[in-house]
Amino acid sequence: MSRTRLSLDDVHALSMAALTACGADKENAEAVTHFMWAAERDSCHSHGLFRLPGYAASLKSGKVNGKSRPTVEDLAPAAIRCNGDNGFAPMALKVGRDPLAERARETGIAALAITNTYHFSALWVEAAELAEMGLVAIAMTSAKPMVAPAGGTKALFGTNPLSFAWPRVNKPPMVFDMATAAMARGEIMVAAREGHTVHDGAGVDKDGNPTNDPDAILEGAQLAFGGTKGALLALMVELIAGPLIGQPFSVEQKAIDNNDGGPSTGGEFILAIDPARLSGNTGVLDHAEKLFSEVLAQEGTRLPAERRYQVRAGNEANGIDIPTTLYETIKALT
Amino acid sequence: MSRTRLSLDDVHALSMAALTACGADKENAEAVTHFMWAAERDSCHSHGLFRLPGYAASLKSGKVNGKSRPTVEDLAPAAIRCNGDNGFAPMALKVGRDPLAERARETGIAALAITNTYHFSALWVEAAELAEMGLVAIAMTSAKPMVAPAGGTKALFGTNPLSFAWPRVNKPPMVFDMATAAMARGEIMVAAREGHTVHDGAGVDKDGNPTNDPDAILEGAQLAFGGTKGALLALMVELIAGPLIGQPFSVEQKAIDNNDGGPSTGGEFILAIDPARLSGNTGVLDHAEKLFSEVLAQEGTRLPAERRYQVRAGNEANGIDIPTTLYETIKALT
Repeated sequence: MSRTRLSLDDVHALSMAALTACGADKENAEAVTHFMWAAERDSCHSHGLFRLPGYAASLKSGKVNGKSRPTVEDLAPAAIRCNGDNGFAPMALKVGRDPLAERARETGIAALAITNTYHFSALWVEAAELAEMGLVAIAMTSAKPMVAPAGGTKALFGTNPLSFAWPRVNKPPMVFDMATAAMARGEIMVAAREGHTVHDGAGVDKDGNPTNDPDAILEGAQLAFGGTKGALLALMVELIAGPLIGQPFSVEQKAIDNNDGGPSTGGEFILAIDPARLSGNTGVLDHAEKLFSEVLAQEGTRLPAERRYQVRAGNEANGIDIPTTLYETIKALT
Repeated sequence: MSRTRLSLDDVHALSMAALTACGADKENAEAVTHFMWAAERDSCHSHGLFRLPGYAASLKSGKVNGKSRPTVEDLAPAAIRCNGDNGFAPMALKVGRDPLAERARETGIAALAITNTYHFSALWVEAAELAEMGLVAIAMTSAKPMVAPAGGTKALFGTNPLSFAWPRVNKPPMVFDMATAAMARGEIMVAAREGHTVHDGAGVDKDGNPTNDPDAILEGAQLAFGGTKGALLALMVELIAGPLIGQPFSVEQKAIDNNDGGPSTGGEFILAIDPARLSGNTGVLDHAEKLFSEVLAQEGTRLPAERRYQVRAGNEANGIDIPTTLYETIKALT
């Protein structure tokens, strides 16, 4: 497949040009671009420019407000809400992040409910940024139904990711971002397009039978990772990123979506914790480094995000490649 | 195997007699007994009287303070700490629970750090009790090293359970309590004793090779459920229930334990959330019931804890069975 090389500045400029041409104002385009740019910087292509056509579709259909002005309000002393004004989630995250961090430092632990947004971006970006500010962060979001509940065979939950970030001493944060689905939706779509099978446990067909055929899974349902336990975590994410913050759960998101190819409406829950406060100032980050050393002393281990950090410098110096077909699609939007 | 039938009142009386005979005062014995009694009531035998000999051993060795007087202090406006005074965790949980609930109602979301305790009980008991008070609860704890990290083959994490509870309308809470290990330690020990194999993915031998032999796993390491994702969750629990609250992580717990057969010292982290506050009073519990209805509309599904609730009434009416050998062991302590 032909590929086109772009510097990270090119990535930024291309995204800005496409989003503003589709109706986003500069501030909203900057917020959304930042998330795709950060993903490309770390070779996380599934959440990079690959997402741009979806963002563009939802701007063009009029579903998403490309000129959103999110507002922050108090829910409780340790909980705030950032109403996304029907824009994309990155804009609400940009507006809500500093108030969340400030609140967590005041109260020790604080929650941010992101509401009335359209979520299409990687969770690790915002979790890592909170950790860079010295906070422990947990983020969760849901999406349209794709994953069966424990014991069931019909799509009900989103791929419902959970991201966790921990600040490190003189190092970028330890951060992971995992779908509670066994496979990313994008991986199954790629397998279907390229005609290869997927691993056991990835999903079931429309009759509920286990299958390795990605097309059959797309007509049926994905499964959660790790069997019943993963499906229970998916349920937890569905409750926390939905009803708990007054936002629609996956089935409800689907019912009101216009199927323009972009994200559906929904919320995100972010928890921020000040580790100095929670630990009673016991040298918490140095203590955690001892645990990380124990992990890394074992052959074959690495900390989550290490691979991303390893490729980052190279991508910053040399740029990244995207499929030329994707490049042409995005150029045509500008 | 010969079994002995006990009413739930018998369970309570037997536990009280044994714990007080081993040096616990009435208040500490009541707290610990409550957790074993609740487990037996719901046929959760792995955390019922099966644990009593371990509790007794740690009282008799002098490791655990059977006359503990836990104290609650502020860490931050939304975070409190209950110092367990080197007693068993249930005593600190009893003392810390109401202050946590009160704080969560004040601040919307609040954390309880349980410190300087010895944890040997099921997490779902306290998570469910917070949900019965109308709060969403998440609890995590760690223990001595038994589980390998992602990519590794040596025991490093505890079985590191995570429990989540959600309040329901006119029903007992939705609650789950899952080890992040693929199998409970007790199940592997039972398999070793009874001479049968365990499922793929349960663990590795001392050379790091995958095995279905429970004895080899006990010499080697257990694995997390669901591969890398489960191992990352185990790391998250290890950080949150350890360094974050100023408590030892698993390797450190092992280094200071006296190996008396009871639990090692450590902490527990509990998060309580007021769903009315977080949702902005949007009928959050009714909304969640709609999600539960969607789950239950699929054939083959049930909500977590439903099986326990189904057996509860029968156990309350008819009592429960425990192995006669266990009964004799406990009687001998009294």
